[in-house]
Amino acid sequence: MPEKIAIEKKVLSENDKLAQELREKFTAHNIFVINLVSSPGSGKTSLLEKTLEKLHDKLSIALVAGDVQTENDADRLIRAGGKMVRPIVTGGSCHLDASMILKSIEQFDLETIDLFVIENVGNLVCPSSYDLGEDMKVVLISTAEGDDKPLKYPAMFRKSSVMVVNKTDLLGFSDFELHTVKENAKQINGQIDIIELSCRTGDGLPKWFDWLTEQVALKKNE
Amino acid sequence: MPEKIAIEKKVLSENDKLAQELREKFTAHNIFVINLVSSPGSGKTSLLEKTLEKLHDKLSIALVAGDVQTENDADRLIRAGGKMVRPIVTGGSCHLDASMILKSIEQFDLETIDLFVIENVGNLVCPSSYDLGEDMKVVLISTAEGDDKPLKYPAMFRKSSVMVVNKTDLLGFSDFELHTVKENAKQINGQIDIIELSCRTGDGLPKWFDWLTEQVALKKNE
Repeated sequence: MPEKIAIEKKVLSENDKLAQELREKFTAHNIFVINLVSSPGSGKTSLLEKTLEKLHDKLSIALVAGDVQTENDADRLIRAGGKMVRPIVTGGSCHLDASMILKSIEQFDLETIDLFVIENVGNLVCPSSYDLGEDMKVVLISTAEGDDKPLKYPAMFRKSSVMVVNKTDLLGFSDFELHTVKENAKQINGQIDIIELSCRTGDGLPKWFDWLTEQVALKKNE
Repeated sequence: MPEKIAIEKKVLSENDKLAQELREKFTAHNIFVINLVSSPGSGKTSLLEKTLEKLHDKLSIALVAGDVQTENDADRLIRAGGKMVRPIVTGGSCHLDASMILKSIEQFDLETIDLFVIENVGNLVCPSSYDLGEDMKVVLISTAEGDDKPLKYPAMFRKSSVMVVNKTDLLGFSDFELHTVKENAKQINGQIDIIELSCRTGDGLPKWFDWLTEQVALKKNE
């Protein structure tokens, strides 16, 4: 379908322009921006709940939560103490795009923000193609999924700077092997950093908090 | 982006025509066809491995396994005893479409098939829009995901005839509640049938095998 492909290229090229505009805005305010991606159910919202609970006194955190139909994720993040949380309901679209983020930041005073988190739609395919002006993509994977996911969805793992392995409390209850998922991720992306944690037990969360706090400080001093 | 929406409508309308062609072919040969959809990592391939091991002596089963980049799933299904298994590598596309299935069935003698299973790409959004000529969509969800998934991805659960809840062996290790996921699924689709099972322990699998065998028999006698 060449017509479809031509349109897709045009859409992506328009998105890239808006993403660049976003990146300049964020950088002008020294805001560290992550685009958090994963399958549905890997625990993006749980990780952000823990992050808000731990860090909202130390950092000024804004979040936008993308969802196909509901505002459930944004509601959870507000309950977890998020003061700057906005839902983006995509109305069926399988990913967020830069125009949605541009519209959402009109609701914030960028001057006051240290960390901007974009919780993407749960989907390991489509969000990999859409730059949202972020500093880094962070891909989350749960130990209840297969440890071959980096090989099966390579674009997402290639474009991510960090892989967070969540639900380490479930290791041993499935065939998921930590060393296998690490090898597979490194095979696709030799530069990817890996953080293992369990939102349920709290194991490994300090490493995530430290990493995030350090990235925010680095961006502040740029 | 009206141009993009117009193209999407055209693509879907072309897909619907091909899906109708597929449905007529399958029905002419009394083949029962399921389109199996889920998030990445819910256990589609595991369920099909168990199904092949149990039923391949009783039923003539053909499978096509859609994957974005690899043929891993098809390889696993062949190792599980599948004699008619073909990979479909979508090359980045986030879903299977009817033209891919039409091309894949050229490799089979439809006269010899009782059950045709389409393992879709792991994605709870995009595959809901593409009719593949199936009798039924079956949506798989794992207890390691959130029990609000039917509310968050309503199109998929609305279009599915059956929801299979996999990994019941992990119940109690997360906040997932069986009664909640059932209520949420029924709220979206009052007609949906629900089968609970664990591919790991085997609990509940007989119900799945019986249901599938019964559907094949019904289609044979149409």
